[in-house]
Amino acid sequence: MRALVIDGPISFVHDYPEPASVPHESIVKVRLAGVCGTDLELARGYMGFRGVPGHEFVGEVVKSPTATLVGKRVVGEINCGCGLCGNCIAGMDCHCANRTVLGIVGRDGAFADYLSLPDRNLYPVPDAVPDDLAIFTEPVAAAYEIFEQFRIPRNHRIAILGDGRLGATVAMMLRAEDYEVVVGGHHPEKLDRLVEFGLSAVPEHTLEPGFDVVIDCTGAAPGFARAMALVRPRGTLILKSTAASGASLNLAPLVINEVTVIGSRCGRFAPALAALEAGKVDPRPLISAVFALKDGIRALAEAENPLNFKILLKVS
Amino acid sequence: MRALVIDGPISFVHDYPEPASVPHESIVKVRLAGVCGTDLELARGYMGFRGVPGHEFVGEVVKSPTATLVGKRVVGEINCGCGLCGNCIAGMDCHCANRTVLGIVGRDGAFADYLSLPDRNLYPVPDAVPDDLAIFTEPVAAAYEIFEQFRIPRNHRIAILGDGRLGATVAMMLRAEDYEVVVGGHHPEKLDRLVEFGLSAVPEHTLEPGFDVVIDCTGAAPGFARAMALVRPRGTLILKSTAASGASLNLAPLVINEVTVIGSRCGRFAPALAALEAGKVDPRPLISAVFALKDGIRALAEAENPLNFKILLKVS
Repeated sequence: MRALVIDGPISFVHDYPEPASVPHESIVKVRLAGVCGTDLELARGYMGFRGVPGHEFVGEVVKSPTATLVGKRVVGEINCGCGLCGNCIAGMDCHCANRTVLGIVGRDGAFADYLSLPDRNLYPVPDAVPDDLAIFTEPVAAAYEIFEQFRIPRNHRIAILGDGRLGATVAMMLRAEDYEVVVGGHHPEKLDRLVEFGLSAVPEHTLEPGFDVVIDCTGAAPGFARAMALVRPRGTLILKSTAASGASLNLAPLVINEVTVIGSRCGRFAPALAALEAGKVDPRPLISAVFALKDGIRALAEAENPLNFKILLKVS
Repeated sequence: MRALVIDGPISFVHDYPEPASVPHESIVKVRLAGVCGTDLELARGYMGFRGVPGHEFVGEVVKSPTATLVGKRVVGEINCGCGLCGNCIAGMDCHCANRTVLGIVGRDGAFADYLSLPDRNLYPVPDAVPDDLAIFTEPVAAAYEIFEQFRIPRNHRIAILGDGRLGATVAMMLRAEDYEVVVGGHHPEKLDRLVEFGLSAVPEHTLEPGFDVVIDCTGAAPGFARAMALVRPRGTLILKSTAASGASLNLAPLVINEVTVIGSRCGRFAPALAALEAGKVDPRPLISAVFALKDGIRALAEAENPLNFKILLKVS
């Protein structure tokens, strides 16, 4: 099958082996895939990943041990736990030490004609949710994960650092949930676009300290330092992305100001799909371009361009 | 009066001006003072402090606008808020942006014959608590601050990193509160001492990952990195001390494992004094040596020796 493959530099190939049938797993024909910052990190060598990247997808089940899944349009949670360890039994399969992760750890991903995932990871997409909306299930679930960890009080003032796809998605989710939120960014063109989308967005340097909650979506160490400076004493700093490499950081402000930092990763699909189906969150304005799978290398290069929000790959 | 003074290199002087009378403040004749890691940082230039360091003390009120305080043996909370700002009104005077802090920010401290503190900061010491026990009120309060921020579930397994005075004090407090806790350290002699004190203490490298709570009392960036490695997914990392200087840190594990980090500083004196009076916590075995004020430079040098726990200064 066709696939983008990381094995050294990333390349497009026509003859990648199709996923083999595995007990309790379905084969999904990928329709649409989304490019995430993690894919770009993996292509640069992050975590030593080899294989097919891509973990945001909508597809159709073409083969499954679960008859009712066959033919269904689905999205899929990306963490595949062992099912046996303490974390899995506690429902934290996304923290299973032996897990594979679609397109990230030990399992080929969505930038290919077909992928394989455990049946229990798959969620049928409601008819009312088209492919180009369903593709946002994973990032919207990651945004909703914040509430699983910290139910933000209603009157809290929230700043989001980072005017990229992640910051914008989190901002859209929080606005949908009736929070007052401002995005701080470095790219005037993107801030203008976010304002067009109905968000409050300003140059980052104009933000004043004192926010109850600061959400770092910059994926860079200076963003974390800035977040420490903007959060009020005893406030909450939510770390939604992080640089893959180390950087010089002085954590003294966390202690002096008794700040709570919450590392936050991916979330459950059910609440995200419900929000998309209800029309509460609609990140489709974030789609900057759609490329064919064969043009995937170009698509990844475009995703590196900070002026773009979301780049999609039309696979079939 | 006699004082240790930071003005360039720290020195002992005989002719430092006594504190002037200020409305709502008492003059305290210092009896005993404790040397803390922060004092050592200040002497190295941290925060550009100039004046008399020292914030752990027991003394006697010799002059006060509050008649009932005069003659009382007291300890004192170290943060002096403006009393007018939002943080002060919310009871967070320790986070007042305009605060002074005894011997740390804009206010002379306890390594001198006399100090001045607002009356509301002073707590009479119960007769049952001798000076060499009362001197631990501030560090024990800092340990109890953890519970103000996070009520640790009973069955949680706790590791403390750092076999110094801070780690030992936190361990003693948690043991007194019936928690299972192990201290990991680098100094075999100190670990042996901690075991003599009835604590569980092991070489740090022998700790295995998976702790529900890890408390970093190392005051060094490698300690934080090690704490990230030892805490379980969705666990809690309490940052009780931190290096004053930056260091290369990769925070990705916080996001990947969805760890919560709680920066924790100083605490209220009332619960600490109650615990000392009840005999629940007795850190006196941590006293390594007592020096006269005039030998304060030597005392600070001894406090730098990692084989010592607590160094005290007998002032009067």
